[in-house]
Amino acid sequence: MKIGKFLCKKKIFFGIFKEDKILEIKNPFNLEKLTGKEYKLEEVKILSPCLPSKIIAVGLNYRDHAKELNMKIPEEPIIFLKPPTAVIGPEENIILPPESKEVHYEGELAVVIGKTIYRPKNFKDIESAILGYTCFNDVTARDLQRKDGQWTRSKSFNTFAPLGPFIETEIDPSNLKIETKVNGEIRQSSSTKELIFNVFELVKFVSNIMTLFPGDVIATGTPPGVGILKEGDVVEIFIEKIGVLRNGVKRNEY
Amino acid sequence: MKIGKFLCKKKIFFGIFKEDKILEIKNPFNLEKLTGKEYKLEEVKILSPCLPSKIIAVGLNYRDHAKELNMKIPEEPIIFLKPPTAVIGPEENIILPPESKEVHYEGELAVVIGKTIYRPKNFKDIESAILGYTCFNDVTARDLQRKDGQWTRSKSFNTFAPLGPFIETEIDPSNLKIETKVNGEIRQSSSTKELIFNVFELVKFVSNIMTLFPGDVIATGTPPGVGILKEGDVVEIFIEKIGVLRNGVKRNEY
Repeated sequence: MKIGKFLCKKKIFFGIFKEDKILEIKNPFNLEKLTGKEYKLEEVKILSPCLPSKIIAVGLNYRDHAKELNMKIPEEPIIFLKPPTAVIGPEENIILPPESKEVHYEGELAVVIGKTIYRPKNFKDIESAILGYTCFNDVTARDLQRKDGQWTRSKSFNTFAPLGPFIETEIDPSNLKIETKVNGEIRQSSSTKELIFNVFELVKFVSNIMTLFPGDVIATGTPPGVGILKEGDVVEIFIEKIGVLRNGVKRNEY
Repeated sequence: MKIGKFLCKKKIFFGIFKEDKILEIKNPFNLEKLTGKEYKLEEVKILSPCLPSKIIAVGLNYRDHAKELNMKIPEEPIIFLKPPTAVIGPEENIILPPESKEVHYEGELAVVIGKTIYRPKNFKDIESAILGYTCFNDVTARDLQRKDGQWTRSKSFNTFAPLGPFIETEIDPSNLKIETKVNGEIRQSSSTKELIFNVFELVKFVSNIMTLFPGDVIATGTPPGVGILKEGDVVEIFIEKIGVLRNGVKRNEY
């Protein structure tokens, strides 16, 4: 099932996206609650499917990427946070800040939390806390990342967390094709089977540190092939069975 | 003026804290709106004065600390994020997680944002976006900080962001005494005049990256003398003209 958020006549709604229509729901975390209202796809603007209170992202987490960089497989996930203010939805523009000359895309599978979870006792707790999966672009100012050592500034600019288009609730995340295209050219191509720490291990690891709430997002790391974005580019993150997250790129000089 | 949040008969209120009473206000970001209700100090429990949507903290930012560590003065602030789930109020316990054997206190001055701010044009914009100042303890699992390289995990455990007791709205932050005590013994003692980047420079730097909202918090870095917390300890962060943020320390084995 594809859950999403959309704008129609200046109001925001949640809905279940079918091929030709949207069934409105009251609450994305309670899928039973259909309002009975329906919308046509062409009359709405799709927004980011949730506004996370926290975005936890993971460093180096693809075996093929670690290999490419000739780096050791990490013992434990390396996490960092991106602020909720960085989130944009599909078709919105990534804004290149004047502080960086080297803004990179990083296509990623994102886990969306559906139930509050802290220090889960077993696998069932972890599984039932996951609402579903969506696409994420962990946009990064590579020059500032190198300069700072700490990754936070380079990954926290407004618009640096494109998220969407839908939360797919009924897929097995263990072997999904993931691809990033810039202006139609494939730049990243891998599968979530290359993940060093799988989504369940990541939910466990992160929720042993901090309580996760419905709508919180864990971005699971990027495969090989990251690279630069320039003004006018269009970047697309495709994940099998989820869809495509597409964003333009603009420069603002403020 | 001292603005705070408190619990009385299981309900949460905001108020202006006077010596002997509390004047209830509707909204901590609009101090005009007195409700007319008053509370006695002894009938309330003081909570953390706000729940930030973002906590932005700054690494090495005291000249005396940099000197002690024999480190170069940084050219730009190094920032990291702590999750809102880490916030606790005065008199609540810091919980030592089983994953760390070396949890440290870090006493800090915190800036509380009062108005939305993004890419401010001038000093007045910055000054008017600040609601006031409070005490902060940037609790850190030092062993995990060293292991990860990235600081996020070590600073993100639940209870690792004690905040309070009040937001003082009418002080000059440029030369305030700051002191940390553990079980009554002074461990950190400095002044905010030792800050490498002052509060206005920090608000500018951070709001050039991300939009700051009312209630968001910037923790300005810690002076020399950080050290370990053990089960049963009581840690107090004192800042002149603001007050004392006191927290106990417990260990949970889950």
